[in-house]
Amino acid sequence: MNKVVTFGEIMWRLTTPYALRFSQARSFDTCLGGSEANVAVSLAQFKTKASFVSCLPENDLAQTAIDQLNQLGVDTNHIIRSGDRMGTYFLESGGSLRATKVVYDRKHSSMAQCQPGMINWDEVFEGVNWFHWSGITPAISEGASNLCMEGIEMAKSKGITISVDLNMRKQMWKWGKTPAEVMPEMVKICDVILGNGEAFEEMLGVDVDGLSGIETCQKVESEYPDTTKIAFTKRDIKQFDHHMWQGFLWSGSQLYESRLHDVGNIVDRVGTGDAFMAALIYGLQNFDRDQKIIDFASAAGAYKHSIKGDFNLATVAEIENLAESANMRINR
Amino acid sequence: MNKVVTFGEIMWRLTTPYALRFSQARSFDTCLGGSEANVAVSLAQFKTKASFVSCLPENDLAQTAIDQLNQLGVDTNHIIRSGDRMGTYFLESGGSLRATKVVYDRKHSSMAQCQPGMINWDEVFEGVNWFHWSGITPAISEGASNLCMEGIEMAKSKGITISVDLNMRKQMWKWGKTPAEVMPEMVKICDVILGNGEAFEEMLGVDVDGLSGIETCQKVESEYPDTTKIAFTKRDIKQFDHHMWQGFLWSGSQLYESRLHDVGNIVDRVGTGDAFMAALIYGLQNFDRDQKIIDFASAAGAYKHSIKGDFNLATVAEIENLAESANMRINR
Amino acid sequence: MNKVVTFGEIMWRLTTPYALRFSQARSFDTCLGGSEANVAVSLAQFKTKASFVSCLPENDLAQTAIDQLNQLGVDTNHIIRSGDRMGTYFLESGGSLRATKVVYDRKHSSMAQCQPGMINWDEVFEGVNWFHWSGITPAISEGASNLCMEGIEMAKSKGITISVDLNMRKQMWKWGKTPAEVMPEMVKICDVILGNGEAFEEMLGVDVDGLSGIETCQKVESEYPDTTKIAFTKRDIKQFDHHMWQGFLWSGSQLYESRLHDVGNIVDRVGTGDAFMAALIYGLQNFDRDQKIIDFASAAGAYKHSIKGDFNLATVAEIENLAESANMRINR
Amino acid sequence: MNKVVTFGEIMWRLTTPYALRFSQARSFDTCLGGSEANVAVSLAQFKTKASFVSCLPENDLAQTAIDQLNQLGVDTNHIIRSGDRMGTYFLESGGSLRATKVVYDRKHSSMAQCQPGMINWDEVFEGVNWFHWSGITPAISEGASNLCMEGIEMAKSKGITISVDLNMRKQMWKWGKTPAEVMPEMVKICDVILGNGEAFEEMLGVDVDGLSGIETCQKVESEYPDTTKIAFTKRDIKQFDHHMWQGFLWSGSQLYESRLHDVGNIVDRVGTGDAFMAALIYGLQNFDRDQKIIDFASAAGAYKHSIKGDFNLATVAEIENLAESANMRINR
Amino acid sequence: MNKVVTFGEIMWRLTTPYALRFSQARSFDTCLGGSEANVAVSLAQFKTKASFVSCLPENDLAQTAIDQLNQLGVDTNHIIRSGDRMGTYFLESGGSLRATKVVYDRKHSSMAQCQPGMINWDEVFEGVNWFHWSGITPAISEGASNLCMEGIEMAKSKGITISVDLNMRKQMWKWGKTPAEVMPEMVKICDVILGNGEAFEEMLGVDVDGLSGIETCQKVESEYPDTTKIAFTKRDIKQFDHHMWQGFLWSGSQLYESRLHDVGNIVDRVGTGDAFMAALIYGLQNFDRDQKIIDFASAAGAYKHSIKGDFNLATVAEIENLAESANMRINR
Amino acid sequence: MNKVVTFGEIMWRLTTPYALRFSQARSFDTCLGGSEANVAVSLAQFKTKASFVSCLPENDLAQTAIDQLNQLGVDTNHIIRSGDRMGTYFLESGGSLRATKVVYDRKHSSMAQCQPGMINWDEVFEGVNWFHWSGITPAISEGASNLCMEGIEMAKSKGITISVDLNMRKQMWKWGKTPAEVMPEMVKICDVILGNGEAFEEMLGVDVDGLSGIETCQKVESEYPDTTKIAFTKRDIKQFDHHMWQGFLWSGSQLYESRLHDVGNIVDRVGTGDAFMAALIYGLQNFDRDQKIIDFASAAGAYKHSIKGDFNLATVAEIENLAESANMRINR
Repeated sequence: MNKVVTFGEIMWRLTTPYALRFSQARSFDTCLGGSEANVAVSLAQFKTKASFVSCLPENDLAQTAIDQLNQLGVDTNHIIRSGDRMGTYFLESGGSLRATKVVYDRKHSSMAQCQPGMINWDEVFEGVNWFHWSGITPAISEGASNLCMEGIEMAKSKGITISVDLNMRKQMWKWGKTPAEVMPEMVKICDVILGNGEAFEEMLGVDVDGLSGIETCQKVESEYPDTTKIAFTKRDIKQFDHHMWQGFLWSGSQLYESRLHDVGNIVDRVGTGDAFMAALIYGLQNFDRDQKIIDFASAAGAYKHSIKGDFNLATVAEIENLAESANMRINR
Repeated sequence: MNKVVTFGEIMWRLTTPYALRFSQARSFDTCLGGSEANVAVSLAQFKTKASFVSCLPENDLAQTAIDQLNQLGVDTNHIIRSGDRMGTYFLESGGSLRATKVVYDRKHSSMAQCQPGMINWDEVFEGVNWFHWSGITPAISEGASNLCMEGIEMAKSKGITISVDLNMRKQMWKWGKTPAEVMPEMVKICDVILGNGEAFEEMLGVDVDGLSGIETCQKVESEYPDTTKIAFTKRDIKQFDHHMWQGFLWSGSQLYESRLHDVGNIVDRVGTGDAFMAALIYGLQNFDRDQKIIDFASAAGAYKHSIKGDFNLATVAEIENLAESANMRINR
Repeated sequence: MNKVVTFGEIMWRLTTPYALRFSQARSFDTCLGGSEANVAVSLAQFKTKASFVSCLPENDLAQTAIDQLNQLGVDTNHIIRSGDRMGTYFLESGGSLRATKVVYDRKHSSMAQCQPGMINWDEVFEGVNWFHWSGITPAISEGASNLCMEGIEMAKSKGITISVDLNMRKQMWKWGKTPAEVMPEMVKICDVILGNGEAFEEMLGVDVDGLSGIETCQKVESEYPDTTKIAFTKRDIKQFDHHMWQGFLWSGSQLYESRLHDVGNIVDRVGTGDAFMAALIYGLQNFDRDQKIIDFASAAGAYKHSIKGDFNLATVAEIENLAESANMRINR
Repeated sequence: MNKVVTFGEIMWRLTTPYALRFSQARSFDTCLGGSEANVAVSLAQFKTKASFVSCLPENDLAQTAIDQLNQLGVDTNHIIRSGDRMGTYFLESGGSLRATKVVYDRKHSSMAQCQPGMINWDEVFEGVNWFHWSGITPAISEGASNLCMEGIEMAKSKGITISVDLNMRKQMWKWGKTPAEVMPEMVKICDVILGNGEAFEEMLGVDVDGLSGIETCQKVESEYPDTTKIAFTKRDIKQFDHHMWQGFLWSGSQLYESRLHDVGNIVDRVGTGDAFMAALIYGLQNFDRDQKIIDFASAAGAYKHSIKGDFNLATVAEIENLAESANMRINR
Repeated sequence: MNKVVTFGEIMWRLTTPYALRFSQARSFDTCLGGSEANVAVSLAQFKTKASFVSCLPENDLAQTAIDQLNQLGVDTNHIIRSGDRMGTYFLESGGSLRATKVVYDRKHSSMAQCQPGMINWDEVFEGVNWFHWSGITPAISEGASNLCMEGIEMAKSKGITISVDLNMRKQMWKWGKTPAEVMPEMVKICDVILGNGEAFEEMLGVDVDGLSGIETCQKVESEYPDTTKIAFTKRDIKQFDHHMWQGFLWSGSQLYESRLHDVGNIVDRVGTGDAFMAALIYGLQNFDRDQKIIDFASAAGAYKHSIKGDFNLATVAEIENLAESANMRINR
Repeated sequence: MNKVVTFGEIMWRLTTPYALRFSQARSFDTCLGGSEANVAVSLAQFKTKASFVSCLPENDLAQTAIDQLNQLGVDTNHIIRSGDRMGTYFLESGGSLRATKVVYDRKHSSMAQCQPGMINWDEVFEGVNWFHWSGITPAISEGASNLCMEGIEMAKSKGITISVDLNMRKQMWKWGKTPAEVMPEMVKICDVILGNGEAFEEMLGVDVDGLSGIETCQKVESEYPDTTKIAFTKRDIKQFDHHMWQGFLWSGSQLYESRLHDVGNIVDRVGTGDAFMAALIYGLQNFDRDQKIIDFASAAGAYKHSIKGDFNLATVAEIENLAESANMRINR
């Protein structure tokens, strides 16, 4: 039976009511979010055993976060409690021609304060066959970066499949090293990479300028030979809340692509990449055909646009339906 | 003066807030709904005398329902009070690529428990010149089906015009007979039919496979010779909340069609068919030209998409404006 | 340093929740609005000194209005307090194919009751280099019209630049004179005119029937020779909440036009013309090139569609970004 | 069968959310209110035929008001449509030690603009056996005062029982005459008076200084000999939302008093006097014993404190229960 | 380690917003409730293993209910899925002198349709040392009553401690037998009884008329000799939302009583008895002294009045704090 | 003319909706708060010139905070922008017997990171005659403590009156020194002290054990001879939201006390001490008699309990009314 561990930071997200600016809001809607937690929650909705590993402080808000993860079926037994605070991020709802805006308040978080040695990876990886991390964690702090490396190496040593979502966030890399100095070593031993051209260039140091999708994947693969699968998505933004979305999967010899999803009147686009990532893991674990895998992952990402909050509260059946066709009749 | 009676079940509808899944909702918006009640309310907004006949239990929620119908100008004097409960239905608001979902809780309702003889049709039909029912009622239970037949026959015997909306709901037919065993006899004596190809096949037993719109109407008419008018609508779903909508009316010799309404950012699509039906009745009673009738009915259905709840809270003037052209300027 | 005075009426606006009709609403959202106040607020967001001159009664609601203007950085020291009441207007939120509807309740307002001599224009215009008014004020009442003329003449005598937004509102002219009898004299001495063909015809008495944009501007200019700039906008309404929007500026020799903004899923279209006007004033005061001016003004109007309420709560930087391109990525 | 007519002004009431000041509110809850309309609505809930006569403008907000009255069972056929506007009033919700605050915006209303001759009293009073008015109407304007007098005289001439709630509102009397110049003539021919000491003094010119309840009633009765019943209430305000409330009825020979209601955590105290008045009329029409009448009226006023809005949405049975005892167990 | 099973029906509760009547509400707040589920949830908050056994239909609303129980830490593996519908109940929020009102819609529920043999009690009771049921379940239907008896007997045969909350609901006993015909046999073999005088009389057939608390317990004990503990509570209702609350525990030789809790401004009183029951079970399992047990149980019931919904979302520490003293300072 | 400077930290406060626990909330109401900012805002409502000095980061949330202070009339020109983040605090709304709970997230805030030398005190104190600080600031960090000391000394050197609210928060003193090591030196040169027995003991090192109010003040005064006024308040908590509140002022020779305010159904008790402090400063600056000063200050604190949020949005007139008597009639 498959058991997945994801490792990263989880934050409270505070969102202004629809279309209101920060200066107009008198309340914030609240939910949880964080790339790797999103992946764990999504997998749990697919009835895959998923454990989320992180570091949170000892207070009521962190406890509520843990309770909510439990409620969604995620194992939280390996979350350690230490440090000063839980990260938060504020989201100003966009509208029409005005883009959504995010203000992070994640500095000095418990996650940023953590260090190698704080997590008992042996216990964490008991019975686990997949480990997932993202490029956000090494960006947080030197301690988080080193702790993440520790986990990756331990997973590798245990023969666990490792996936990474490169998740380029230039603004976050402030602790002294650039992504290009840190990431290649970490990604080298991973099996599955989700990224895009910019991330391949700036995080992995692969020059993909001017290359086609297939050529890009071939080049990344040649420089990261442990990798067996490379995935990426394309998003064409027609309007603030109307996107065209498509997923691609390179399987070492061929580039599979999903159909193009026409995603109108988007409810919440945060976490759609994580929904894709979770479904990709699920597909790689459960489906035989690469075409089916990328269709499922891509539909998961598309479906997530319809759900409020960071988490993709969708079942396998709902996503399979969308992967087949977009039937918008009332379901009665 | 025209006076219309509609007969059927009315339910409380409990709807999640915009785009929320059942599992996310902490409150439900509440309104009333039911195909035949929707028709009565719409007619009352057109200042046509409309009476809604039904069966409801003796409790505060049923009383509130009756009060709200009264408030909207519908005569409720012939609603009988008996049985165990009022049906409800739960609606999970869709969004983007996720379809709206309905969960019915209408079993064992007062309406399902009713029987022939419970309604004094003589009193109901006093001064009435139009009786409307729909294919939902015979689907509810054997008792409801027989009571409905009783009403249709009584109306026929009094020379009252009878209209039926076939309203195919396959899932509901669970009491022992199929639609094809029950409906033909009931529809045979009706004057006006609203339906679609699937309903003509499965409810009326008319094989319309591969036929054009005109041919379909001709065939239905030949097998249901009492019928003088047949109407249907077409809905092309571009996105969850963007539909193309058009109405058609067969007058025995010609198929009239309205212009195609481009209905974007739909507020609430439930009850749009009932809005069409009500306006069709109104048009047949008040307008001379079939083209005007179908334009009005079709515009009514289109307009309903902009109104929250099941009921079409629109005036004749507002619908006539839309029938002429879609003027979206601020009305000041 | 630039200092702008705007003069007109400010009202409470009471808006039904999204898509609800007056008969469905159980609460109204509240904000302030009024063409000339909107211009002042927008300028204050651009960090231009702006003073709003008006007449309001002595009560808590008027005081709250003044406080809110102060909070948004508008100087309210020259608002006089007299008369019976503050105007209000009720806005029924449209949806899909149903247009937004406005019911005014502004009769007998303090502004309608004011008279020449009530305002100390000498104090008002101290240090001021721009005066803006709109065609709504002379429509309110004879007193308001005469008081407005008094202000215009005083501004002219002091060498202050004067702009006018013609703001045709046929329904409001009820006090005895037609726009054509009143407006030409007032507009004659203005430097900048914002209008459209209908307003040029009916308010200024210029026959522009069948003329192109350039010809129209040339003709208006020839009959109103004090004018140095004429601006207008075009709005093509695709759907209730999907418009195409473009601005034009005639500089005496050439017609500059902005790019066409494709404005989908509009949040609030009230006040978009005022946002354009404010940005036009700002541009004329701060930018050299006419093309840049009209791009900025047009983007300001487009941007306003994304903001709830009458006021354009946007910074210069945000509008410049949109003037350059519509980047809808999440801003993090 | 009893049929009651009430005559007066109805307004929209706009209330801040619980405990918010005007400056904090971003929305107002909306309901209808007005002393005489409140009486009519309350009677309709008691299943007494009630007609409300008033003057409202021709616009959507007035129409919505009329529709809501209809929905509550009040006959609105004799409301005339003319004049400029519908009155509104704004209510700042109090809390703890801060009192509720009301700002009226009722000047220049349709009701203030009406004149004798505008109402067809013959039609209004067809089949009617009770006419109710209040001291607010003559305070509105000279026209409203004269129109009210016209109605009172017409009612008297037809032998209809007349009741008046003196409803002292000093601030409103601004049209040229004092209450003492206007009211005595109007009240002289009334059968039932609801008032208090201050109103008896300033409106009726009866010096009741230092008199007991019984003596006061005796003196008023001696100067207003047509009167058969005099009622008053006492309110002892313990806290903002905790009052002690009691009703009294003078029947010509004896002063009946209800038990003292201990009314805590008041939901809405506006309209409680009107609820008392309506129940007094109901009691006088339906009950034999004066003690039962005052118990019922007093309980109606007490019960109203638990209902949001101006209207007493309570049935006869609910009020009778409270008149007997305050049973606060969950009613299941 | 203690493991508790509770058995009964769980329903959706739909509540009007604060102080609104059914006729005023436009939305219902939603939560879950049911006496035995409430006990299980409360125990789970105390970190006691609790399993809730029930019968629910196969639909999204039932699934959401099960998910929410899981989220609160309750084991739901033994809930069976069959039958037509999930019960609901509607709660009209009271206010001031108006009592809260409940309308049940639980007829024909899956629970009412269940029968002996449907539950695998052997699996249910694996590792369990406490079984709790209430007098509501035998009231539902003959099938539910027999199924409940089956469970009680099975528990007894396995030496599991059995508690019962008599929960007298006269209105519900409609399936053919009276409580007095059914309950004595079921209660005879129970170890712990929560009840009151009325329930002892009408459900257990013990004549306690005129007896003191101690005498009542002695008499019940003499007729139900298996019982080792009898508990009851007293509620003195000062105002709708101000109660005095106290708990009592009879231990076979002595009556222990908690201090009297003065519970003002009650947030939600539904489920307070269940909170008491759960804490009583917890106390009997974890505390030595009877005085401590009744203090804890009573404080749990008191604390629940401060929490919205049926469930007592309180920790052992929070209740122990209240059991010691009511400290209302801000906890920072 | 009086001009007051206050110095301290301002935070966003995120509050659960009424009576909801953290685990139940899906949104937080948002407002600003912080003891010294609260004082500045309150003074600005009294039309006293008030400037708030603090340290905030460069982001949209800090900018919105500054804008809101501006809007409330507070001068924010001396707020410096540096450091990593703005403090926040989360407030779980209490109810009935459950106390309100606060979770701080203020570590590593910009204020905690500030250092002496960062503020240009010469500019800050230009034209200023009163400086107010509180014991919270030295608790934040060593840097904040030293920066505060720098300000106090500079104020003293300029002959500015200095007031301090001791504001004991034991939990916050974590940076290495105890209050008793830091505070005495800072308070020594202050003119006005607000405190209580515990604060006098633990912050000022004055042993007041067993002393009466007068004796306490005398002893504090003898050890802090620069002090001319000492104030304190007493709060007797009857219920979660029902307090008795009274203020006291020692003027060097006599202890003045206000009347006892009976504060029921409290809306928001946070910031009531700050409201008292602000009114005390106002009184000392504007009133002659000490009795009037303490009556005003005490009424201000009492009044604040009725206003949502940290800020006392009350005028001098409103507070004077309450100081005289609690008149709870509707104010119309």
